[in-house]
Amino acid sequence: MPRYARYVENGIVHTGVVRHGRVHDIPRDLDILTLLQAPEHERTDILINTGRQQRKPIEDTRLLAPVEPRALRDFVTFEAHIAGMKKGEPGDGSVPEQWYEAPRFLFANPWSVVGTGADIPMPPFTQRLDFELEVAAIVKHTVRDLAIEDAAEHIAGYCIWNDWSARDVQGEEMRVGLGPSKGKDFANTLGPWITTPEELREYRDGDRYDLPMTVSINGEVVGSDNLKNMSWSFEEMLVHASRDAFVGAGDVLGSGTASTGALSESWSRTGQLTPPPLQVGDVVKMEVEGLGEITNRIVETTSPAHTVPRARRTYGPDRL
Amino acid sequence: MPRYARYVENGIVHTGVVRHGRVHDIPRDLDILTLLQAPEHERTDILINTGRQQRKPIEDTRLLAPVEPRALRDFVTFEAHIAGMKKGEPGDGSVPEQWYEAPRFLFANPWSVVGTGADIPMPPFTQRLDFELEVAAIVKHTVRDLAIEDAAEHIAGYCIWNDWSARDVQGEEMRVGLGPSKGKDFANTLGPWITTPEELREYRDGDRYDLPMTVSINGEVVGSDNLKNMSWSFEEMLVHASRDAFVGAGDVLGSGTASTGALSESWSRTGQLTPPPLQVGDVVKMEVEGLGEITNRIVETTSPAHTVPRARRTYGPDRL
Repeated sequence: MPRYARYVENGIVHTGVVRHGRVHDIPRDLDILTLLQAPEHERTDILINTGRQQRKPIEDTRLLAPVEPRALRDFVTFEAHIAGMKKGEPGDGSVPEQWYEAPRFLFANPWSVVGTGADIPMPPFTQRLDFELEVAAIVKHTVRDLAIEDAAEHIAGYCIWNDWSARDVQGEEMRVGLGPSKGKDFANTLGPWITTPEELREYRDGDRYDLPMTVSINGEVVGSDNLKNMSWSFEEMLVHASRDAFVGAGDVLGSGTASTGALSESWSRTGQLTPPPLQVGDVVKMEVEGLGEITNRIVETTSPAHTVPRARRTYGPDRL
Repeated sequence: MPRYARYVENGIVHTGVVRHGRVHDIPRDLDILTLLQAPEHERTDILINTGRQQRKPIEDTRLLAPVEPRALRDFVTFEAHIAGMKKGEPGDGSVPEQWYEAPRFLFANPWSVVGTGADIPMPPFTQRLDFELEVAAIVKHTVRDLAIEDAAEHIAGYCIWNDWSARDVQGEEMRVGLGPSKGKDFANTLGPWITTPEELREYRDGDRYDLPMTVSINGEVVGSDNLKNMSWSFEEMLVHASRDAFVGAGDVLGSGTASTGALSESWSRTGQLTPPPLQVGDVVKMEVEGLGEITNRIVETTSPAHTVPRARRTYGPDRL
């Protein structure tokens, strides 16, 4: 039954168990990753004991991102999303054959992780602020060269991921060929808590999860999909990421954007900026059955928006 | 005068000062980042005290990577390198205009950092193993929205970075549009130690460093450039990275590959696989004046090379 959260009270970070709409405190010296790694019987003992600890309604709690990963790998596993995006990118509008061969990913900024309820300052350099509706798996132990039959036991649980994106900046950056940088490094919402695989057993469908997902702006649903439409399972993603490389305990693996789970997919399909880019005051809510919901509001930025000069030319016929 | 290193002795990680070809031990409870952040007078006291500590010749020391960054941002600041690479990529062979506008970067795998002397297993999935000759800056404090006039004081020092790359895999991945993943996540050598900005004062030329760089395979020099050919300074890169986003203490900012600092630049310019891709047994050495040298040998892999199936199709005319 366990769902685990991190929250702040009186300036102190607590680990808690979420149960029946309440958060039950766990003794402070147990960080959430240690808890997730503990053997089943120890976790059960802890759960029984938390019944006697301080508890409060979730709505009165200031939740944090449930983990502070060292590495976030964001995959691209929803075929319909990439098919939609490619219609608006340079090229012939089709999904590249290379997408089908293996689950591709990129690393995200680990310092930009925030929780549900956090305000997201409007980045000063964008007129195309967007979200991405994703589900994240949290890795239980540091692994390398994992076999598929061993992969499930190394996934600690799941949460929702909103990979906030500045589409105009991202588009410019991707023209250089090495992927986005400032277009995606300012905010990543993870939350509301970690739901363990045991908790999701009823939703399991083969090696996928049958979990409806929606995203709404100011209460109006603008996108929906189902997690079972991933073209690879989380276990396969972990196997691929760990091939000849370390994946660390607490690392996050993102599903990639669900279809219609980003405004830019509509922009790309239709050539119209409809729905419009996010504005200050907009509230973005994402819900995934079994995992809960995360909500963030866009607020005015306080960033001074320092810029740097263009490249100094260092190359010419005289050099090479 | 300080250069700081991490090394292993009897299974314990030590922080040391490098001086006159020897490593002087520093008390164990001072990790290298704390040391780099300490005020000048405290560091001087420590340096004086280390004269009385255990010391040994560098060649008898097992050096580690000098930092364990949470995030590595690898930039692309050498114009001649990107000009050479673009000749072999899809497109018209010219440097994209977007490259000149701002210093673009991507995040690398923080778990793959190793030191000089470490063996690099040949990745089981490549026939095009290559290196990248770079210099890395280590960030002193966690910053956000840094102004250019404040940037220099937040750089703790510099080291050499070899960003090992599997060019065949990287090429496939980049066709999807989001940059490389498995083509670059298996190994990053940082080392041999951190050289502080004070130590490099004599090489300073405006806001660049005049530091000759070379890379050799089995003793033969195959590439050389100078760090002053960066199209942006490290201070500018830090300002750009910190714009509306956190850059963490201990994070690494890479210069990107120097011109002729990767075999693939030759392959791309000439259309020939000359020099040939790295093979088991090859020794790659990188030297940068003022920073020292790093050396790694390619060894047989022990990776079982688990693969995952191709994408399961989930999208068709019936879905959207």
